Amino acid sequence: MGQLIEPRTLKGFLDILPKQEFARRAILKKVEEVCQSFGFVPIDTPVMEYSEVLLGKGGGETDKQVFRFEDHGNRDVSLRFDLTVPFARFMAAHRSELYLPFKRYHFAKVFRGEKPQKGRYREFMQCDFDIVGSDSLLSDLEILQTMAVCFSSFGIDKLRFLISHRGIFSAFLEKEGIAESGVAILRTVDKLAKIGADKVKELLNEEIAADKVEKVLSFITKEDSNDATIQNLIDLCGEKNEHILRLETIIKELEKLMPQIDFVLDPSITRGLDYYTGIVYETYLQDLPSIGSVCSGGRYDNLTALYTKEPLPGVGSSIGLDRLVAALEELDLLPAAQNGASVIIFNIDDNLQSYYLDLANSLRKAGIQCEIFHANKKMNQQFKFAETKGHTFALICGEEEQKSASYTVKDLRKRENHSFTDLDSLIQFFHGQDL
Amino acid sequence: MGQLIEPRTLKGFLDILPKQEFARRAILKKVEEVCQSFGFVPIDTPVMEYSEVLLGKGGGETDKQVFRFEDHGNRDVSLRFDLTVPFARFMAAHRSELYLPFKRYHFAKVFRGEKPQKGRYREFMQCDFDIVGSDSLLSDLEILQTMAVCFSSFGIDKLRFLISHRGIFSAFLEKEGIAESGVAILRTVDKLAKIGADKVKELLNEEIAADKVEKVLSFITKEDSNDATIQNLIDLCGEKNEHILRLETIIKELEKLMPQIDFVLDPSITRGLDYYTGIVYETYLQDLPSIGSVCSGGRYDNLTALYTKEPLPGVGSSIGLDRLVAALEELDLLPAAQNGASVIIFNIDDNLQSYYLDLANSLRKAGIQCEIFHANKKMNQQFKFAETKGHTFALICGEEEQKSASYTVKDLRKRENHSFTDLDSLIQFFHGQDL
Repeated sequence: MGQLIEPRTLKGFLDILPKQEFARRAILKKVEEVCQSFGFVPIDTPVMEYSEVLLGKGGGETDKQVFRFEDHGNRDVSLRFDLTVPFARFMAAHRSELYLPFKRYHFAKVFRGEKPQKGRYREFMQCDFDIVGSDSLLSDLEILQTMAVCFSSFGIDKLRFLISHRGIFSAFLEKEGIAESGVAILRTVDKLAKIGADKVKELLNEEIAADKVEKVLSFITKEDSNDATIQNLIDLCGEKNEHILRLETIIKELEKLMPQIDFVLDPSITRGLDYYTGIVYETYLQDLPSIGSVCSGGRYDNLTALYTKEPLPGVGSSIGLDRLVAALEELDLLPAAQNGASVIIFNIDDNLQSYYLDLANSLRKAGIQCEIFHANKKMNQQFKFAETKGHTFALICGEEEQKSASYTVKDLRKRENHSFTDLDSLIQFFHGQDL
Repeated sequence: MGQLIEPRTLKGFLDILPKQEFARRAILKKVEEVCQSFGFVPIDTPVMEYSEVLLGKGGGETDKQVFRFEDHGNRDVSLRFDLTVPFARFMAAHRSELYLPFKRYHFAKVFRGEKPQKGRYREFMQCDFDIVGSDSLLSDLEILQTMAVCFSSFGIDKLRFLISHRGIFSAFLEKEGIAESGVAILRTVDKLAKIGADKVKELLNEEIAADKVEKVLSFITKEDSNDATIQNLIDLCGEKNEHILRLETIIKELEKLMPQIDFVLDPSITRGLDYYTGIVYETYLQDLPSIGSVCSGGRYDNLTALYTKEPLPGVGSSIGLDRLVAALEELDLLPAAQNGASVIIFNIDDNLQSYYLDLANSLRKAGIQCEIFHANKKMNQQFKFAETKGHTFALICGEEEQKSASYTVKDLRKRENHSFTDLDSLIQFFHGQDL
C-alpha cells in the first residue's frame, strides 16, 4: 500500500465527533423551530460560486480571507465567506419566483482564511435569518425578537443587546464634513471593544483632523442612560433626525415587548460592513460577556445592488454556531448528550440472530431506538461496549427466553433487572422510561 | 455602483428554493430518525482537505472529477468527492477516542466535476451510514435493513435489492488467472446496465482473451432464480467457497426479515470502486426502476489502509438526496409542502403594532407558528400575500377587537369566519386545526 498518510485536517478545519454533533444538531433544530415559528422559510445556495458574484466585478486585490481558485474549466471561483452575499445573489436570481417580504433562514458552512484562534475557525457554520422587501419598523423589531426567542429556547434570558443606527452615524459624518473617510472611521470605531479607546484615537488621528477625532470619540461614547445617549446624538447631529427618532422608537418598543432584556444604545457599534444603513446590533450574554457577541446584524437599504437596479431593503441577523456552542457549554446549557440508541440487545446465541433482528424491528416500530450487539462475544465485552456508548437498557435473551416469549432487561444505570412475559409489557415498560 | 453582475451560479451548482428545501429537510429528518433508531450517531468532517489525504500519496494524474486547488498557504487542497474517504481519515485520526463497532451517519455535500446532466450535479448531498469495526453478518443485514426502513418511512415498500459479493468475483478472477486485470474488468462490468452486454463484451475483449471474456459474461449472468444463480457461481468458482456461502445466508436471512422486498442476486453488480471486498448492493424502486439505484454500498475489509496499519472492516450505504427527492416527487410521495407560518396576523392599524407583536408572541408560546404582515397596507395586498405564501388562517384585529379582547379569524381555505371572545378559545381553536 505504500507509505502511510497522516490523517490530518487543514488548520482551522475541524472534525466533529458524535457527542458534539448531537449537540450541534439539537441547537440547530431549536433555532430552526424558532425561525419557522416566525414564518421564516429555508433556502440553500452553493458552497462555491463565481468569484465575480461573491467579490464584485474585477475583485481588486483578493481579500486574503477568501478561498479563491481556478477550477478545471478555468473559471475564477471562490468558497462563500458569508451567507449574505449568496442571499443577495439568490434574491436577484429568483425575484420573480418569490413573494415579498421574503423571510428566509439559511444555516450553512462558510469559509474564511483567517488566522485560526480559540473559537475561530476557517470553516464554520452560520445561522442567518433575514426579512427582505420591507423597510418597516415591525421587521426590525421582529428580527430582534427572533434572536431573543432563540436564546430563550436554550434557557438564556439574560441578554444585553447593544444597538446603534448607521443612519445616525452617516448624518453625523456628513455634518462634520468627514463622510469621505466614513468607511475607515467605521472600521476603526468597530474595533473599540477589541483595541481600546487610546488605540482608536491613534488610528483616527491618521485619518482625520484632531478636532474631528474628538467629535467622533464623543459620538461613540455611551452615556449612563439610553436617554442621555440619545440627547448626545441629537446634540452632535444638530437635530433629532428621522434615524434618531426611529432608533428611539425601536428601543422603546423592544423594552415593552421584552422587559427581561437589557437594551443598550451604544453608538460605538457600527458592524464594520459597508452595506448596513439602519439599525445595527450585537448580542451579549450577561452571564458570559467575555465570549463576545453571539448574534449580530442590522438593516441595509439595498441587498442586491451588485446584481439588479431594483433596490431591496431588509434586515437580518447571524448566529455563529461555534461560539454559541462554546457559550452553552460554558454555561452548562448544552442540550443533553445523546448516544444513539438507548436499548441494546445482547448477542448471546449464534442461532438467535434472526430472532434478535425481529425483536429489534418490533421495538423500533414501537418508537424505541435500539441496536443489537454486532456479534456473539463475551458478556463482559458486551457490557463494556454498552457502558462506553451509553446505552440505558440491555435486553438479555437466550434460547429459553425466545421459546417462552419472555424478556429480561437490565437497567444499566440502576443495575436492576426486570422480567417481562410478553412483548407488549416490555414495550410498555420502555415507553414509561425517560429514553 | 458600476456595471451590474449577472446573478448566476456555476454549472451543476444549484440554489434550493423554500418549497424544495422544506421537502429536503423533511426527508433528511426521516433518514436521520431511522439511522438513530438503529443506533447510528452523527459526525461531521471538513468540506476541504489536503489532496494527499483525499487522493493518496502523490495523487498521480488528478482525477478530473476532483475540485483540486492550491490555497494561499500553498497547500494542495481538494473538496471532498464522497463521504467515505473523509470517514476513513476520521476513523484513523480519532480511533483512540471512539469505541468499536462504530456506527456513524453523515449527511453532507460532496463535489464532483462531472458533466452535469438531469439529476446529476457537481455539488450534491449524500446521506451515508456505515458500521465499522465488525465483519459480522449481522452488520451486513442491519445495513440493508436500515436502507429498507428508510424507504418505508417515505411510504416505499416495493423495493428491489440487487446484491452480489466481491469476494466471489475475486475468487473467480483468481481461478481464471485474470486477477491482474481485475480493476478494469470490474469497472467495465459495472457499466452493464448503462451500456449493454454487447458494449461490455467489446470492452472486455480489449482487456482479456476471448475465452475469458465468455467466462466473465457467463459469471455476470443473472439466472431465473437466486438458487440457479448461486449454482452458476459455484460451477464457475469450482466450489461453494466461503463468500458464496455467506451471500446465500445473507439473502435467506433478508428474505425472512423483510418478505415484502425483492432480493435479487445479480453478479453483474460490482460497484466499480476498489475498496469493496464483501457484499455489494444497489436499490431500485419497483414502481420507478428507470430512475436508477437510489441507495447503494457494500462491505470493505479495510477502510483505513491509507492512514494506518491496523485494518478496520466495515459495511456501509449511501443515499443520494437529489435522486431520492426526484423519485419521491415522481411517485407523489414528497413530504407535504410547508410554507413557514400557518397563521398571519393582518396589520390594519399603525397604533396596534405592539399589540400585534404581543399577540404573535402569545400564539408562538402556545406552539402556533405565526407572523405579522410587515406593514399596514391595503387589505387586498395582505390577502394576496397570505394566499401566495400559503397561510391557512388570517387574524383580523383592529382597535375594537383589541379593546374587547376578541378575535376574528378567517379560514383562508374554506373562506369562513370565526369569532372568539378570549385568547384561550382562539388558541384552542388553532390547536384543533391541522396546522
